[in-house]
Amino acid sequence: MLKDWTKPAVPKEEELQSRLAAAQKKLAAQQMLVKDKKLPVLVLVEGWGTAGKGFLIGQTIKDIDPRIFKVASMEAPTKEECRRPFLYHYFAQIPEAGKFEFMDSGWMGEVTKGCLRGEISEEDYTKRIESIRRFERQLTDNGYLVVKFFLHISRKEQKKRIERLWQDKDTRWRVSKNDQWQNEHYEMCMEVFDRYLRETNLPSAPWYIIDAKSKAWTRLQVLDILTQGISIALENRAMAVPLLQNVFPLKKMPLLADIALDESKTLEDGVYREELKRLQQRLGDLHNRLYRKKVPVIIAYEGWDAAGKGGNIKRLTEALDPRGYEVNPIASPQPHEKARHYLWRFWTRLPKTGHIAIFDRTWYGRVMVERLEGFCSENDWMRAYNEINEFEKELSDWGAVIIKFWVHIDKDTQLLRFNDRQNTPEKRWKITDEDWRNREKWDLYEVAVDEMIQKTSTSYAPWHILESVDKKYARIKALKIVVEALERVL
Amino acid sequence: MLKDWTKPAVPKEEELQSRLAAAQKKLAAQQMLVKDKKLPVLVLVEGWGTAGKGFLIGQTIKDIDPRIFKVASMEAPTKEECRRPFLYHYFAQIPEAGKFEFMDSGWMGEVTKGCLRGEISEEDYTKRIESIRRFERQLTDNGYLVVKFFLHISRKEQKKRIERLWQDKDTRWRVSKNDQWQNEHYEMCMEVFDRYLRETNLPSAPWYIIDAKSKAWTRLQVLDILTQGISIALENRAMAVPLLQNVFPLKKMPLLADIALDESKTLEDGVYREELKRLQQRLGDLHNRLYRKKVPVIIAYEGWDAAGKGGNIKRLTEALDPRGYEVNPIASPQPHEKARHYLWRFWTRLPKTGHIAIFDRTWYGRVMVERLEGFCSENDWMRAYNEINEFEKELSDWGAVIIKFWVHIDKDTQLLRFNDRQNTPEKRWKITDEDWRNREKWDLYEVAVDEMIQKTSTSYAPWHILESVDKKYARIKALKIVVEALERVL
Repeated sequence: MLKDWTKPAVPKEEELQSRLAAAQKKLAAQQMLVKDKKLPVLVLVEGWGTAGKGFLIGQTIKDIDPRIFKVASMEAPTKEECRRPFLYHYFAQIPEAGKFEFMDSGWMGEVTKGCLRGEISEEDYTKRIESIRRFERQLTDNGYLVVKFFLHISRKEQKKRIERLWQDKDTRWRVSKNDQWQNEHYEMCMEVFDRYLRETNLPSAPWYIIDAKSKAWTRLQVLDILTQGISIALENRAMAVPLLQNVFPLKKMPLLADIALDESKTLEDGVYREELKRLQQRLGDLHNRLYRKKVPVIIAYEGWDAAGKGGNIKRLTEALDPRGYEVNPIASPQPHEKARHYLWRFWTRLPKTGHIAIFDRTWYGRVMVERLEGFCSENDWMRAYNEINEFEKELSDWGAVIIKFWVHIDKDTQLLRFNDRQNTPEKRWKITDEDWRNREKWDLYEVAVDEMIQKTSTSYAPWHILESVDKKYARIKALKIVVEALERVL
Repeated sequence: MLKDWTKPAVPKEEELQSRLAAAQKKLAAQQMLVKDKKLPVLVLVEGWGTAGKGFLIGQTIKDIDPRIFKVASMEAPTKEECRRPFLYHYFAQIPEAGKFEFMDSGWMGEVTKGCLRGEISEEDYTKRIESIRRFERQLTDNGYLVVKFFLHISRKEQKKRIERLWQDKDTRWRVSKNDQWQNEHYEMCMEVFDRYLRETNLPSAPWYIIDAKSKAWTRLQVLDILTQGISIALENRAMAVPLLQNVFPLKKMPLLADIALDESKTLEDGVYREELKRLQQRLGDLHNRLYRKKVPVIIAYEGWDAAGKGGNIKRLTEALDPRGYEVNPIASPQPHEKARHYLWRFWTRLPKTGHIAIFDRTWYGRVMVERLEGFCSENDWMRAYNEINEFEKELSDWGAVIIKFWVHIDKDTQLLRFNDRQNTPEKRWKITDEDWRNREKWDLYEVAVDEMIQKTSTSYAPWHILESVDKKYARIKALKIVVEALERVL
């Protein structure tokens, strides 16, 4: 792409200025539509060192109300961020619906730099490209406008700029080592950039190469493409997209109806206490070891209301060093969370390497409550199985151990526990009208849960059913599964 | 994709049959919507030999009204078809709006076979993949639903099927050499198929791998995916898509307003007659040579009404052997043409190798009359510059010489000629009310023509301006350009 890019004809100064004024006006008018129609706009500005990325962003935002844009200058990931998956740094930054986000270099910069420095193997590179393609597709599938610019200048022009900046003591600091290195290895950089651009040139999030020779001309090209992109995206709000086939290895799972909840799934008190002690001790040891080995662990809990998730989680955490784990109770999303990709609030809650994150309810809300209550479109939740498998694949590739529990009881047991809560004053806070309403939809939930378990039990992030009519049995089973999973990786 | 594909769980017979009945019913109901909403549906069925592609298609169409589907059994291209560009064979077969088309193996089959037989170099393969990606994207961008199935069976299963067919004399003919070869080189085929599937797995036209072990199960998977795809496509009718940046080398071209139409662009009668004779003779010779060398030539004429296209074309054809050229006058599309991708009627009119096709008006109608009269959406014509550059790139890669003429006059000259036509009884048929109406939109047309010439003058298919206030000058210039272009390739 970059290699056979043709320089567009530069308009004459007068025409350029009048077109620039028109484009600025257009963007100024569009921003209100972006806000009203809740379009999230992510503008990624990449390019050669000294091509003027920062300046361009500075100019572009002048036409936008400061309340509806953000600029993210993506420095190299911090030490903290390096303890998170590759895309964390970027997923965390995605804009809210109705807002612009400008990124001064991002995942392209990171990956191509890694390539040029020989820090990324060919295999890792291929994986990253796949991750990036999934990331960008998930954004556009979920209604994001993603506009990607590459600011292009020739080797000669770059050299001139570096020299000019260098001559003046006040601007010398702006010449980075990387800029100089790029200029000395221009052809090699070109190869790496060209390949990256080709391999990530998605039809729904295409690359635009910008002739960055002069400032006003750069700005005009960017404004023209940006405003055009916004027009098209506004036309397409809430568009359905084709559903992709699962490409991940799936485990065969039983239907809920086929799971026995009989006497065999109970434990005697004595056995329970003994096992609990033994397993908690073992888990504590393992927690120390995974902390040292920097393995991240994600434990996800879903289950029927009153199935005993809370007590089950408690038995796990009792064994853990509080400095090394976190429980994330997940309620309905806050407005700022609802305004972003539904996985955003989970991406931003990921543990650091060596830490355990426990989720009390999870991203699977998308295919359960959001599906059944109509909080998202059919296309949204049907797409989500694949999106979630991709999300968990990202975590697994990062090295995370992922354990997902469905805490299971039957309908009668739930009724007994609901009545008990209702009739016991100190437990009454635990039962709400919503619980009763959900109970009425038991059969619909069962269909949704079955589909979820069938479609998202991947080999790298399988579901485990915890039979919890006898809560003690479920707790011991959970502990055993966690201990075994950790033993496998340590 | 194929290599890490997970076999889905096969439902029990009873469930399978009931789901099958439901899916058939769904498709039966959808077909009326497909027809009413004018959705074109292209179903490509690829897969291993003996996987049951033909049988599957036979079963699937049982649920569709015969008036709204077609089955194309894509035999290897005929000798005739081999004298056309690679995609011709397939583009010619695309369905009409509101109809289904089932293809029993298509461009995937051809490319992968070529690869396995070592007939396609790595370089050609890469080019083909790019062509295919563009082709499929153009279809989905233009509102087509493209559903691609790969019917998958194991090596063992294939072997069993081949042996069973072979044992019975009546079915022995159905075992092809290719089937046997595939089975003997199963792993190698797998590699080639896997790579192809990965490289053409577009989000807007994704691949679906089908477990083809049993017939009813195969059919159910296919029906489920097909009906799901139709539902989503129906939701998305007339969707706008992002505009891609030009990636082809462009020539710098003048604006129409800057083209001198003065005395310098005239010819004396004597010079004209001499030049005409000389150039026509030369062209006749070249025509013979290009016939022998099998070079295809495409000459496209656009221009203002009454600019003199017809007479210009006549001076070209006078020099040509009638067995080796064809003039295609392009009027507004017929209903069966309008019902397909707008380039379809040009794809199907391409010359054979060694032949010359002259188009009197062209595919550029999309960005002129269709744009100005609102016959297509803004997104449609804005996207067309790139689509047309891609189309011509396909022709150029095939080896075609492409020459595009804009026959140019000024507004006053047109008025003189219009009046002359109006006032001369034997010329009156040449002028219509529509011509007068178009004339009123001269300024709008000029904007559109300028944009067209700027955006589609690629190095491999440039525009040439024929100044035609003096028609003789324009004719000689056209002949010279054609002669020079042919001399360059012969």
